[in-house]
Amino acid sequence: MRKQKITISVIGGSRITPQVSTLAQAVGEMVAQCDCVLVCGGLGGAMAAAAKGAKSAGGLTIGLLPGKHKTDANAYIDIALPTTIGYARNAMVAASADIIVALPGSFGTNSEICYGLVYGRPVIDLGDWKIKGMIPAQDVDQAREKIKEIIKKLQQA
Amino acid sequence: MRKQKITISVIGGSRITPQVSTLAQAVGEMVAQCDCVLVCGGLGGAMAAAAKGAKSAGGLTIGLLPGKHKTDANAYIDIALPTTIGYARNAMVAASADIIVALPGSFGTNSEICYGLVYGRPVIDLGDWKIKGMIPAQDVDQAREKIKEIIKKLQQA
Amino acid sequence: MRKQKITISVIGGSRITPQVSTLAQAVGEMVAQCDCVLVCGGLGGAMAAAAKGAKSAGGLTIGLLPGKHKTDANAYIDIALPTTIGYARNAMVAASADIIVALPGSFGTNSEICYGLVYGRPVIDLGDWKIKGMIPAQDVDQAREKIKEIIKKLQQA
Amino acid sequence: MRKQKITISVIGGSRITPQVSTLAQAVGEMVAQCDCVLVCGGLGGAMAAAAKGAKSAGGLTIGLLPGKHKTDANAYIDIALPTTIGYARNAMVAASADIIVALPGSFGTNSEICYGLVYGRPVIDLGDWKIKGMIPAQDVDQAREKIKEIIKKLQQA
Repeated sequence: MRKQKITISVIGGSRITPQVSTLAQAVGEMVAQCDCVLVCGGLGGAMAAAAKGAKSAGGLTIGLLPGKHKTDANAYIDIALPTTIGYARNAMVAASADIIVALPGSFGTNSEICYGLVYGRPVIDLGDWKIKGMIPAQDVDQAREKIKEIIKKLQQA
Repeated sequence: MRKQKITISVIGGSRITPQVSTLAQAVGEMVAQCDCVLVCGGLGGAMAAAAKGAKSAGGLTIGLLPGKHKTDANAYIDIALPTTIGYARNAMVAASADIIVALPGSFGTNSEICYGLVYGRPVIDLGDWKIKGMIPAQDVDQAREKIKEIIKKLQQA
Repeated sequence: MRKQKITISVIGGSRITPQVSTLAQAVGEMVAQCDCVLVCGGLGGAMAAAAKGAKSAGGLTIGLLPGKHKTDANAYIDIALPTTIGYARNAMVAASADIIVALPGSFGTNSEICYGLVYGRPVIDLGDWKIKGMIPAQDVDQAREKIKEIIKKLQQA
Repeated sequence: MRKQKITISVIGGSRITPQVSTLAQAVGEMVAQCDCVLVCGGLGGAMAAAAKGAKSAGGLTIGLLPGKHKTDANAYIDIALPTTIGYARNAMVAASADIIVALPGSFGTNSEICYGLVYGRPVIDLGDWKIKGMIPAQDVDQAREKIKEIIKKLQQA
């Protein structure tokens, strides 16, 4: 029986549309409702919206910051961890997750998806990425279903 | 008023004497009693002993692992974060802390002390390191006093 | 007048077809003929083929290895630099380049393309990646033309 | 018979006295005379002086920069490699060396010495560091002798 907390990294653009912000917030809320720790890059855009959602549902949020200052974190991060290694921290955002949820984003998000697949993490596609190896989901409810199945397996392992 | 949780990185050797293990456990307990999150390298020796101490006092523990597998973590880690960057993660163990407590250790611990001083983190010396810039402490009680002073300042900032 | 040597990172899969191997070798040869230093990830597949091509034309080759041992490098690497940070070194393979040439590959190559675009490096597409922001090239000769134009600008800067 | 070039990382403070600058330059010259590639952190102080010395003797110099811009390199760097991972690149400056020469410096240099010892690289002490595991040398001539012995072994390996 696994004792470690299950972590879900939510990845997505730092500049996003209001629609994506709403989606990110719903995903963060869902992560907290699944009793998982939300991990993200700690900055703005999808990272802030997802962390806000998780906090609204009483969850715990971790921000893996690229720089060295905790004050770089968005307002919804409980535990700010400055990695100091710049965008190379994307490898860590991916590897730190038991499950990754990918929202729309740009090259940074794409690199995190790649690392997730390299490190064998399940990567749920809520951003129309359609990269081979990702797990497609139409909406937050479908993502929740997939996550619950994966959690069940992780807890039995 | 600061909303982020305060993190304390406890650093020390991966191969330690029973005396250092007892010290590490007491430090971990103290970290939890101070209502801080314990951060460490997630592996054995002082890392495991400190995490064990924190858990015994109801604290939360984070392990910044060098590799890519969560199963590398010791049994007292709540949130395992595989950094994938090997010993370069020592920079992160240091930068992720609001306060660092250094126990006896070897070159790895020494590198973390150096990073702590480079990044301007307060580094409490419980390992007879006597490196310029560290804050000396004779025992866990003295370390606790210094930590409480620093926490007071952090919460006012 | 720029005094630094110009570096070209050749990126591509570690498991490749004979056709891609031939392509990689031709690209490596071209890099050396352009009087540029070839940078790559130092391992097998496209990295080895490109380095072999560069050596055949008298070029200098650098391998940015993921691990800590110089002996991990393929046989055509002149200067082996163990980065010790695993696949996070992909950020560095991209940033270390003045120009990137992308061959067919998998997630690792894709992450390097993303980093190249994040860091504003010109990324020439010889692998049918068709990612927005890349510079398309039909074959090695077209790639050579694009590279010569970029080199001209770099030397004037 | 080893085909890879032998690399020597020269490490030392970014702010140094004229005496240390003279020493660093002599070490750089010696590295080039030993037909080795000089590796350093690419910035100012001991890094620039050592690279200047190597160039004066016709050597090749590599700078492993903490940031992402090649223009951060000092004027004596032939091949600038932006690592993008900040001071965590100190792990790489150490691991990239077949041999490390340590000049006087501060916490950054100390962290590089620690990494050198962790990764089993021979670390020659020209900075009065007196850390257990280092190879003491009184002056550049003694360092040269030690380096020649190590090179002999590396070439036979």
